[in-house]
Amino acid sequence: MTVRVGVIGAGWIGQEHIRRLTDVVTGARVTAVTDIDAERAARAAAGPGARVYADGAALVAADDVDAVLVTSWGPTHAEHVLNAIAAGKPVFCEKPLATTAEDCLRITEAEMAHGRRLVQVGFMRRFDHGYRQLKDVIESGRVGEPLVVHCAHRNPTVPESYTSDMAALDTAVHEIDVLRWLLDDEIVSTQVVTPRSTSKRFAHLKDPQLMLFETAKGTRIDLEVFVNCQYGYDIQCEVVAEDGLVRLPDPAAVGVRTAGQHSTEVLTDWVGRFEAAFDTEFREWIAGVAAGAEPTGPSAWDGYAATVITSATAEALTSGDVISTDMKPRPVFYGGTA
Amino acid sequence: MTVRVGVIGAGWIGQEHIRRLTDVVTGARVTAVTDIDAERAARAAAGPGARVYADGAALVAADDVDAVLVTSWGPTHAEHVLNAIAAGKPVFCEKPLATTAEDCLRITEAEMAHGRRLVQVGFMRRFDHGYRQLKDVIESGRVGEPLVVHCAHRNPTVPESYTSDMAALDTAVHEIDVLRWLLDDEIVSTQVVTPRSTSKRFAHLKDPQLMLFETAKGTRIDLEVFVNCQYGYDIQCEVVAEDGLVRLPDPAAVGVRTAGQHSTEVLTDWVGRFEAAFDTEFREWIAGVAAGAEPTGPSAWDGYAATVITSATAEALTSGDVISTDMKPRPVFYGGTA
Amino acid sequence: MTVRVGVIGAGWIGQEHIRRLTDVVTGARVTAVTDIDAERAARAAAGPGARVYADGAALVAADDVDAVLVTSWGPTHAEHVLNAIAAGKPVFCEKPLATTAEDCLRITEAEMAHGRRLVQVGFMRRFDHGYRQLKDVIESGRVGEPLVVHCAHRNPTVPESYTSDMAALDTAVHEIDVLRWLLDDEIVSTQVVTPRSTSKRFAHLKDPQLMLFETAKGTRIDLEVFVNCQYGYDIQCEVVAEDGLVRLPDPAAVGVRTAGQHSTEVLTDWVGRFEAAFDTEFREWIAGVAAGAEPTGPSAWDGYAATVITSATAEALTSGDVISTDMKPRPVFYGGTA
Amino acid sequence: MTVRVGVIGAGWIGQEHIRRLTDVVTGARVTAVTDIDAERAARAAAGPGARVYADGAALVAADDVDAVLVTSWGPTHAEHVLNAIAAGKPVFCEKPLATTAEDCLRITEAEMAHGRRLVQVGFMRRFDHGYRQLKDVIESGRVGEPLVVHCAHRNPTVPESYTSDMAALDTAVHEIDVLRWLLDDEIVSTQVVTPRSTSKRFAHLKDPQLMLFETAKGTRIDLEVFVNCQYGYDIQCEVVAEDGLVRLPDPAAVGVRTAGQHSTEVLTDWVGRFEAAFDTEFREWIAGVAAGAEPTGPSAWDGYAATVITSATAEALTSGDVISTDMKPRPVFYGGTA
Repeated sequence: MTVRVGVIGAGWIGQEHIRRLTDVVTGARVTAVTDIDAERAARAAAGPGARVYADGAALVAADDVDAVLVTSWGPTHAEHVLNAIAAGKPVFCEKPLATTAEDCLRITEAEMAHGRRLVQVGFMRRFDHGYRQLKDVIESGRVGEPLVVHCAHRNPTVPESYTSDMAALDTAVHEIDVLRWLLDDEIVSTQVVTPRSTSKRFAHLKDPQLMLFETAKGTRIDLEVFVNCQYGYDIQCEVVAEDGLVRLPDPAAVGVRTAGQHSTEVLTDWVGRFEAAFDTEFREWIAGVAAGAEPTGPSAWDGYAATVITSATAEALTSGDVISTDMKPRPVFYGGTA
Repeated sequence: MTVRVGVIGAGWIGQEHIRRLTDVVTGARVTAVTDIDAERAARAAAGPGARVYADGAALVAADDVDAVLVTSWGPTHAEHVLNAIAAGKPVFCEKPLATTAEDCLRITEAEMAHGRRLVQVGFMRRFDHGYRQLKDVIESGRVGEPLVVHCAHRNPTVPESYTSDMAALDTAVHEIDVLRWLLDDEIVSTQVVTPRSTSKRFAHLKDPQLMLFETAKGTRIDLEVFVNCQYGYDIQCEVVAEDGLVRLPDPAAVGVRTAGQHSTEVLTDWVGRFEAAFDTEFREWIAGVAAGAEPTGPSAWDGYAATVITSATAEALTSGDVISTDMKPRPVFYGGTA
Repeated sequence: MTVRVGVIGAGWIGQEHIRRLTDVVTGARVTAVTDIDAERAARAAAGPGARVYADGAALVAADDVDAVLVTSWGPTHAEHVLNAIAAGKPVFCEKPLATTAEDCLRITEAEMAHGRRLVQVGFMRRFDHGYRQLKDVIESGRVGEPLVVHCAHRNPTVPESYTSDMAALDTAVHEIDVLRWLLDDEIVSTQVVTPRSTSKRFAHLKDPQLMLFETAKGTRIDLEVFVNCQYGYDIQCEVVAEDGLVRLPDPAAVGVRTAGQHSTEVLTDWVGRFEAAFDTEFREWIAGVAAGAEPTGPSAWDGYAATVITSATAEALTSGDVISTDMKPRPVFYGGTA
Repeated sequence: MTVRVGVIGAGWIGQEHIRRLTDVVTGARVTAVTDIDAERAARAAAGPGARVYADGAALVAADDVDAVLVTSWGPTHAEHVLNAIAAGKPVFCEKPLATTAEDCLRITEAEMAHGRRLVQVGFMRRFDHGYRQLKDVIESGRVGEPLVVHCAHRNPTVPESYTSDMAALDTAVHEIDVLRWLLDDEIVSTQVVTPRSTSKRFAHLKDPQLMLFETAKGTRIDLEVFVNCQYGYDIQCEVVAEDGLVRLPDPAAVGVRTAGQHSTEVLTDWVGRFEAAFDTEFREWIAGVAAGAEPTGPSAWDGYAATVITSATAEALTSGDVISTDMKPRPVFYGGTA
């Protein structure tokens, strides 16, 4: 069975995923596209030979749409996801699940009312080979219980439209999700320390930022977010545990020796860093949908957690205080005890 | 357009490629299978819902076969490839193209008579990300003209059926192809030096072997083949050139620190090492076939060269001499001047 | 000219330095030893053939003592250093210079009154080859202005007598000194975050601790101190700057591949890690004394700063607050503007 | 007791060792210097305040010379070493021990007649920390019996006076000695393969050269000597054994990330690479002499072996043949059975 996917939002990331579902992932076909810009929708639909729909609601309702992919503007996500749940269709929603905690909770409630999982949120790092190796080592017990995690998330540069709160909302959100999964733990408080900002920044921007998270089990995480680091796109993660530590590898790259230097290339682009993770993410999602299984990737609850924690972190940046995340208790439906 | 592939030979590697064409590579469908063991053919055909054919000739002739994949026993390759050429169908042949130089030449002659390339030989290393980075660096001129290449090809263990000449014929063949491509050069002589053999070997086996190749341009290659190295599957390649050197990376792996050691995993399996290369190899082959383009991967001429050089190397092992490869001049059709 | 050194304190570190001055460093001779335990003094004096003195004052005053080495119990340091200054003799004092800020200031005042530098404090990291490379890179401007520094200081285990405040006073003190020097900057505030403690600890101990420092220029430093990390003695330092970063290397160690692992040894002992730094530290100190030059190593002011900052950090551990270091302005004598 | 050393030969390496014995190594004093150029001798003697002698014989005979260091022109070594043996004085001779096998044997015979070891030959790699780690791993049995060794010895450039046979006589001689020691084995044959030479060379020079050695136990060694590699001074050694492998580390160097590259410095100078080994070599030699012990470093027999094997290798370069080293049986005096 080929999974027929309808795509809501045909911007850059939507186009990327249409290409992925068409050319890279087997077992899927993009049959429907919609976008606020009808011409852009038409262009994006041309490749896979999909039909263009007037809006998300029409697309979700269409007979030839088995599963929905939401890649529209963040504030519209909740509506589309709720429509898909109402239609009983699997839905993959790019991050964020919703821009407010309230909307995220409405989604979880709708999904719980439906009675089985339909929603997967687009946090691709859980599908990265290196992070999966990290998790395997942690779960094997080889290094013991995690106590401290050191992370860095660095981009070469960002455009002027990038604001200081986006360090939490758009950038750190990936670490926040992947660390909750890696540690099988919840983040309970957040704090932001601001070094002097790079002089290569726009004047309005706090960059780098040093974020500090505490988990329910008492593990402490420090995360450097530095989105104008100039030198490359560089993701670091080191988990220090009771008996040892484990560290994310750098991507494999040829070593070159010339002129008194041994050099390896550092990526400068997040696409190259996580392309294989995106492919795996969609391959597994499509396989699950095709099998009629509930999704195993990040859940609506994970989407809620990410929105709560990133919002608290943005607040911590402004206030300078340690902010408690004050999340709702995790329902049994999502693996919790509440 | 979906490329309909007929597979001749449903042993382990045939099954692997059937799975790959079905589950991993988009744009292809396995529609036909044949094998000397009809039951095995039937089992392999079941997954993709392919038809079983009585023999290779029938399969090649079938209307629902756009392209042929030859994964049968080596000595039968030539016949199937010649059939495909006669039918004007693209054919992907696992190594070796043929087990004798004469058969390889017959294939090149048939292909030249046909007038355009139809044949691709299954040397997957050219599709490995690391080797491609190596080639990019060499071609960029950053390290200058290659002078010496150091290689190692190590397997943890081989079964008792593995004989000393297979070090050249089955194992070194991959380096021989990839180095000809990497250096854009031809191997003109070969020699084998035999260290004392590992005591972990079977008594009949010369292992490790140190192979020495000379290219037309005068570059020297040393290649350690060690198929019972115990510790892992490990592929090394370092190109020393006039202004510097470039080295193949080890696969990325998490670093673990415990008990006074920093450790990273070494693969123990060639499938893991080259799985992504196999995927890319087939993705590019299928895309080319779908586009009606000539294949860009290893040609029939490369298959001929590999057979000549590996045979000469097996002879060098027996004789202890430096053996000239005495290849025919490369025809213009294959990028040569003859 | 051979520098005749008198050693006050013949415990483990005193004996180490006596051996170093006798067997490793040229141009020096230990001619005098004293210790609160006269027998221990006698044993330590035997090797170099030194005379035993009844107390520090007598040793400082001795004619055959050109320079004084203080390796006694911390609370006695100030007295011995002040004696040496009064005698106008160069004095090398193991850390801490004094256990209170007041005593440190008395020493700086005495030294300023004397009119030229006599005091060097035993922070050996400034003499480590790796840290010197770090400083060279920073000062070269290759990576630009430092913004964030990530450090880790890990010991395999500590004895039960180690208390939580010693993480700052005895352990972090080395990073505190070397970072002030590396960054050519002053630490103005300190904070300690406590992850859950390792279950391998003694019940009384907060371990690991995450220390956060802010410098006058606005650089932020995070330092993980983990003194029961089990796996090794491991010192990490990464300086993230405006145009790139630079990282302290691990000690060179042979790579071993066996049984599916690539491994390098991690040291388990700080002596091995910094032995060459100790040798260089004493070689440079003795050469300076022999030449009649003022010492170029860590000054009495650096000793004052270390005591102030480590005390503030120990206070921050207890209070949970961000503590301002409130240091006196740096006198012109010590390179400042006050 | 201070060992009083007389130095024969005050060229660059002689001056280096005079400085080392004066400033770096404790327990030694250079009391006598001679050189064919009396002015150069006088300049070299000034630093340590040594007396200048008219010739080697006079220096060896001098009462204030406890031990002799030979750093003169190679062809004169034998005479000075024989003089020292005749005088019953310990003698450290820079490589080569003598320029002919016959002279080397005369030295071994004189030393055997004397009845205890007096001679140490200046192969400093045995004192390098990395090579010692290599040997420890091999002797621990962790990797099993060595089967193949891959080595490279690269210099950035050499002056025009460097001739092709010097690749064996002056450059490979270090690997030849250190491998005999590392493997506890003897080299029985040698061969040289010549890749096309670098175009950055002088026209007269075969560079790089690929040397192949076979040991008595059947281990095979390949050694790339490339003395105009441009990029750096780079020493590589990998021992492949029955259960795994062990590899010499690169010198520790800070990692720098800038402009899309992760870089570490490659040394460009052999002095920096082996300075610590030289220091250890002399420290251990002086300590042994002071203790009246026989030297434990490379013996006169090792000097003989090095001369035989390097000569055979130079011959192999000219003839293109595999040359048997045809060494005399090793006497019991030197740890052999003859």
